[in-house]
Amino acid sequence: MQPTLCDSLYTQAQQLDKHDRLAATRELFALPKDMIYLDGNSLGPVTYIAKQRAVEVVEKQWQPDLIKSWNQHQWIDLPRLVGAKIAPLIGADPSEVIACDSISVNLYKLLHVALSIQHESSPSRYKIITQIGNFPTDGYIAQGVVAHHNQALELVYADETDIIAALDEDVAVLMLTHVNYKTGLMLDMAEITAKAHAVGVIVIWDLAHTTGVIPIDCQAWDVDFAVGCGYKYLNGGPGAPAFVYAARRYHTQLSQPLTGWMGHANPFAFDQDYQAGEGMQSFLCGTPSVISMSVLDASLDVFEPIDMQDVRYKSVQLTQFCLLCMEASDLLVELPCISPSDGQIRGSQLAFTHSQAYAICQALIAKGIVADFRAPNVLRLGFAPLYVSYQDIVTSVRTLSVIMSEKIYLDDDYQVRHAVT
Amino acid sequence: MQPTLCDSLYTQAQQLDKHDRLAATRELFALPKDMIYLDGNSLGPVTYIAKQRAVEVVEKQWQPDLIKSWNQHQWIDLPRLVGAKIAPLIGADPSEVIACDSISVNLYKLLHVALSIQHESSPSRYKIITQIGNFPTDGYIAQGVVAHHNQALELVYADETDIIAALDEDVAVLMLTHVNYKTGLMLDMAEITAKAHAVGVIVIWDLAHTTGVIPIDCQAWDVDFAVGCGYKYLNGGPGAPAFVYAARRYHTQLSQPLTGWMGHANPFAFDQDYQAGEGMQSFLCGTPSVISMSVLDASLDVFEPIDMQDVRYKSVQLTQFCLLCMEASDLLVELPCISPSDGQIRGSQLAFTHSQAYAICQALIAKGIVADFRAPNVLRLGFAPLYVSYQDIVTSVRTLSVIMSEKIYLDDDYQVRHAVT
Repeated sequence: MQPTLCDSLYTQAQQLDKHDRLAATRELFALPKDMIYLDGNSLGPVTYIAKQRAVEVVEKQWQPDLIKSWNQHQWIDLPRLVGAKIAPLIGADPSEVIACDSISVNLYKLLHVALSIQHESSPSRYKIITQIGNFPTDGYIAQGVVAHHNQALELVYADETDIIAALDEDVAVLMLTHVNYKTGLMLDMAEITAKAHAVGVIVIWDLAHTTGVIPIDCQAWDVDFAVGCGYKYLNGGPGAPAFVYAARRYHTQLSQPLTGWMGHANPFAFDQDYQAGEGMQSFLCGTPSVISMSVLDASLDVFEPIDMQDVRYKSVQLTQFCLLCMEASDLLVELPCISPSDGQIRGSQLAFTHSQAYAICQALIAKGIVADFRAPNVLRLGFAPLYVSYQDIVTSVRTLSVIMSEKIYLDDDYQVRHAVT
Repeated sequence: MQPTLCDSLYTQAQQLDKHDRLAATRELFALPKDMIYLDGNSLGPVTYIAKQRAVEVVEKQWQPDLIKSWNQHQWIDLPRLVGAKIAPLIGADPSEVIACDSISVNLYKLLHVALSIQHESSPSRYKIITQIGNFPTDGYIAQGVVAHHNQALELVYADETDIIAALDEDVAVLMLTHVNYKTGLMLDMAEITAKAHAVGVIVIWDLAHTTGVIPIDCQAWDVDFAVGCGYKYLNGGPGAPAFVYAARRYHTQLSQPLTGWMGHANPFAFDQDYQAGEGMQSFLCGTPSVISMSVLDASLDVFEPIDMQDVRYKSVQLTQFCLLCMEASDLLVELPCISPSDGQIRGSQLAFTHSQAYAICQALIAKGIVADFRAPNVLRLGFAPLYVSYQDIVTSVRTLSVIMSEKIYLDDDYQVRHAVT
């Protein structure tokens, strides 16, 4: 036992775990022994049900039934079925969500849709606003749209703490990530959406660090469009398909340029001319990645009996408890936290800065605590309420405390070049 | 034994199988018993090595190593590694091929790249030519590009038997499928490419029905760009990632709008501004579908020891032998063949027309012969040389003969509405 974290916190952790309404969900995950996984916001772990499905789709579907599986095992319906399972997690109707492609590709589609809708009614609007420090691919995709679009457009990066100030009658689209991938700052989706609408701006939300850990209500909050990730808190497997949400009021205006055959009203009529399918189907493009999507489909079953309010409650408690442990261990001076101290505006992660953050992260991993590093100086800990316990946090902070006090991170082993994580 | 197909053809089939240099590859596939699979041009069957890999990527990589797998199991390199395995099948250098997204999405990228290159040197060129009867998604994607591009463009459908006649100084890009998905007509890639180049036209080839069954030589034939499919003759699993080929001479001109983070020169630097990675990396967009791509990666190992000339030789022989059996069974009057009679310009399939083609196909499937139907009236048989035998053909034609002579296809069971296949 480490001297820097008092026993009372461990006792407290035991009590919190004992009363955790989600404690049993941990058993659904095939977590490695001797590992505490604080990186579910980057890649969620496999569930037993997903493991089984991966074998099933290959050995009980593809192998015996081959091409017939498209009907027999509903492969053709997977994008819609997966979307319908995601819908309740974001307060959407099942008909408003579909699974396909990646977040990047889906943002590309949505930017075109939103720009096209604005162009109809407000052709003078030419700006796309996003937040400074947004996850890079979001900005990159917007840059690609701006560079190639048939309208003259401008991409503006604005301060996420005062995003409304950037909105005026020149703005067509506001594209924001709900929870900052680095700091964990959570924006007020309802308020920003309402204020953007008040000045005629359409909003696209990236829910990568939201879906599966923070309940939102797309319908109640009048959300226009959103994308989200299948492989983080939804545990759908590496590179799992992403999803798209579009409010039903826009379903007759979904003009996007990636008009592949699966988005056609009747793909198997083999018509020469493209005719978009109804509603969300029009977001489909090429043949879906059936194996990956089947694994995601199975992973989502974990959420079926779960109340997302319980998930959010535990998420806030976990991050708060971690900060308490860090404080009690005197770690916050050396590792200042750049995440919001107010749990109500914090996602399910904490970010700490240190010039040696990469080496500290590697030292943690070597001791079985999987965190991640975000360039240039951020140690990021993610807290997935479905499988992280309060006792995990005590153990993690104790380990971190030893690494810092004994300066283990300065060992040659951890002073390696930045790698992909 | 059926009376309509003489014993000498069966004896001939036995001899051909005995001398088949590829006979042993059939053992690499986990084919269902009591099924003859003539639809590998739609979805290839699973190999034992791919089955093993599907379990491995989930249970030996994702499960125990989680996020660390991106480095530890080379997930981050998969698009490049898979591309390098495909390269020798199409006569490309490994640095000229990368696996990602779907054919549809990749055609979208390539059309932008080719149009951008043309715009630099010949800004007055405004036409995209494709063939009448091309696989629909190719045309749909071109229609999406035309509708949304910042240049005024026109898409023209031309007769594939005289495609050169459609080329003039107004044409920017010629986009062709090498082997017609319906008829199996194979275009002369070398000649068309050369003639297109002579009039300043860039050519994009769709190799969906080519790769893995017909050896081509992108380098020798000076091919500009190509896309291909992972789930047909490469047996990579349903919805497996597709691939892109771009000739090295264009590698400094690959401007495409789907600028996602995996295409960035340094994805993990998290820079605000997009800077395209070198060469083929710039075609990457979002996070790759690791499970599906791993299965494709494994499937490709089957090709490593194989000489593609042997594959092509057997492919031509299989289709020729099938026509011989059909002829000997007097089936070609009732089921006229719309595929080329000359094996040298025929892909690895045969298409027969009949007003009841859908019902005939269903009747065949019910008897264990899996063919497919292409609207409105085509019965399509695909011949994958790695696992289809000459005796399979005799059995299939005998079965078809019974179905036709006894009019089994008129049974209520087969007179159902057209379904997805």
